[in-house]
Amino acid sequence: MDDGVTFSSILEATEGLRGVACLTPVISSAKLGALIGGQVLLKCENFQRTGAFKFRGAYHALSRLKASESVKAVATISSGNHGQGLALSAQLLGLSAQVIMPKPISALKYRAIKRYGGNVLIAEDRGSAEAMLEEVIAQQSAAYVHAFNNRHVIAGHGTIMLEFLDQISHLDILLAPVGGGGLLSGLCIAGHHLQPSLKIFACEPAGAWDAERSIRENRIISMPNPQTMAEGLRTSLGSQTLPILRQHLSGVFSVSEEEIPLAMRVAFESLDIVIEPSSAVALAPILRAQPELMGQRVGVVLTGGNIDLTSFGTIVGNDTMNVRSMP
Amino acid sequence: MDDGVTFSSILEATEGLRGVACLTPVISSAKLGALIGGQVLLKCENFQRTGAFKFRGAYHALSRLKASESVKAVATISSGNHGQGLALSAQLLGLSAQVIMPKPISALKYRAIKRYGGNVLIAEDRGSAEAMLEEVIAQQSAAYVHAFNNRHVIAGHGTIMLEFLDQISHLDILLAPVGGGGLLSGLCIAGHHLQPSLKIFACEPAGAWDAERSIRENRIISMPNPQTMAEGLRTSLGSQTLPILRQHLSGVFSVSEEEIPLAMRVAFESLDIVIEPSSAVALAPILRAQPELMGQRVGVVLTGGNIDLTSFGTIVGNDTMNVRSMP
Repeated sequence: MDDGVTFSSILEATEGLRGVACLTPVISSAKLGALIGGQVLLKCENFQRTGAFKFRGAYHALSRLKASESVKAVATISSGNHGQGLALSAQLLGLSAQVIMPKPISALKYRAIKRYGGNVLIAEDRGSAEAMLEEVIAQQSAAYVHAFNNRHVIAGHGTIMLEFLDQISHLDILLAPVGGGGLLSGLCIAGHHLQPSLKIFACEPAGAWDAERSIRENRIISMPNPQTMAEGLRTSLGSQTLPILRQHLSGVFSVSEEEIPLAMRVAFESLDIVIEPSSAVALAPILRAQPELMGQRVGVVLTGGNIDLTSFGTIVGNDTMNVRSMP
Repeated sequence: MDDGVTFSSILEATEGLRGVACLTPVISSAKLGALIGGQVLLKCENFQRTGAFKFRGAYHALSRLKASESVKAVATISSGNHGQGLALSAQLLGLSAQVIMPKPISALKYRAIKRYGGNVLIAEDRGSAEAMLEEVIAQQSAAYVHAFNNRHVIAGHGTIMLEFLDQISHLDILLAPVGGGGLLSGLCIAGHHLQPSLKIFACEPAGAWDAERSIRENRIISMPNPQTMAEGLRTSLGSQTLPILRQHLSGVFSVSEEEIPLAMRVAFESLDIVIEPSSAVALAPILRAQPELMGQRVGVVLTGGNIDLTSFGTIVGNDTMNVRSMP
């Protein structure tokens, strides 16, 4: 049995998500395009159900689990967006969901998981989260649905690329943020099947700079204490995502903590779109006119917008008030 | 010659705007739908060029002017969004644009008009704005393009309804904000041609409660000093819009100043969309579960998102922090 993610598994996920996931809009921005002397097209997965792309992978994985096993409960560790995707998917499929959130947690994401009927346990750190997960799995006979190191999750995320290219027909370059690499793995497999010339770049916070090193050294390097406000990107790569990214990525762009609120502000003021820090990481290379992007037709996956106004104001607020966000 | 707005003039505007205006996305919200036990579909004109629907009417009016007369300059009075639409349209069509903004002005909209190559004059109030306009028209032989009392502007705005129904096929009810009534006039004529059963409601700030009275008394009533943060809705109806609204509207919903920031916050936190106060006015009836909307399939035109983060924070900020935005 082949455990790898293939284009046909992504096609199958596309069928399974039809009528369940939203067909998210693509928004083009002349202002951002002008910054790179090219075109910028934004695939707005922040408008996906649960406010993030993670719903696609979670729903596809759960529907596969349900079809093949007599599963009643599922469990995961998540900073929030995968947890929300899992909780809503479980609700839609008649399963129970247990989400373990390692601190520091987003209160908005915590409340959302509860609203979708998920049970939440809060862990002091990732180490104790893993111990709690084992206990939950043992006690509730729950199936573990990893946030990214799961081929069905990856296939679900890959559906974004099919949809995107279907909506806009051609791209020179694609940008997406990298945490565990599940999104980018799906994008890579679908993208290079449909358009082999496409260059795909991962965008990574400098404070959680493990993916680029892992790809370079061909082994999973985990950072013990990643320092970034992009809570979705603190994870390290997995055994399934590392080989896919090694094979397909054209490079990794490092993004500083100062660039994240700036990109959130530009999205707010120039695009009228609310994005969370993890999502802003993929917009930052455009704002600094990254040389590889000049004159190109660039697609960006806006991954999520799950942030409350108070947190948004704290992050983006007065410190950057005087930064001119656009030329 | 018939000066009225007809469905065929809206079809003509649709042709003229093809490839120039954006086809804006429709976003459905399960959360908002749940509030009225029905469905909510949002036509996101905040993602239109210039960040507001006004570009449609301005561009269509200017392209008609250019085709029929030897016009080199255009002028208008605007709180900002029509001014932006006019300035960008003039730039695209090789005309010069003069925009007179009555105080209080939005700094963001002022800067945007300048960025699109428009010339801006600031007037102390609407009375002096009109005197300045006459002077500009006389000195520059400029053509006056009224923000709403202009049949080509109305026809341009009507294209939103065609696009919306094309995207989602059917609506029971449509909500849109009313200031001068140009948007609603276009929506009414297109909407009732395409779907005679559609109920269209105007949404009006209680502090600028002149449209409902004007329609009831069948004469244009202007408020000398409207009190609302929705700067786009401080105007009164015009001679062309009053009869259209009288004929087509099912009613007018009054929206309080307290409901405006609440709707802006819900759009931010639950929809990931940035809207300005004038646009929030059309979302408010859903949040209070207006009886007429219960169980219905409701469309809302989100008219614009031209607000900077500082103003947004000031309006929506701490006063409403403890208001639960969603049940």
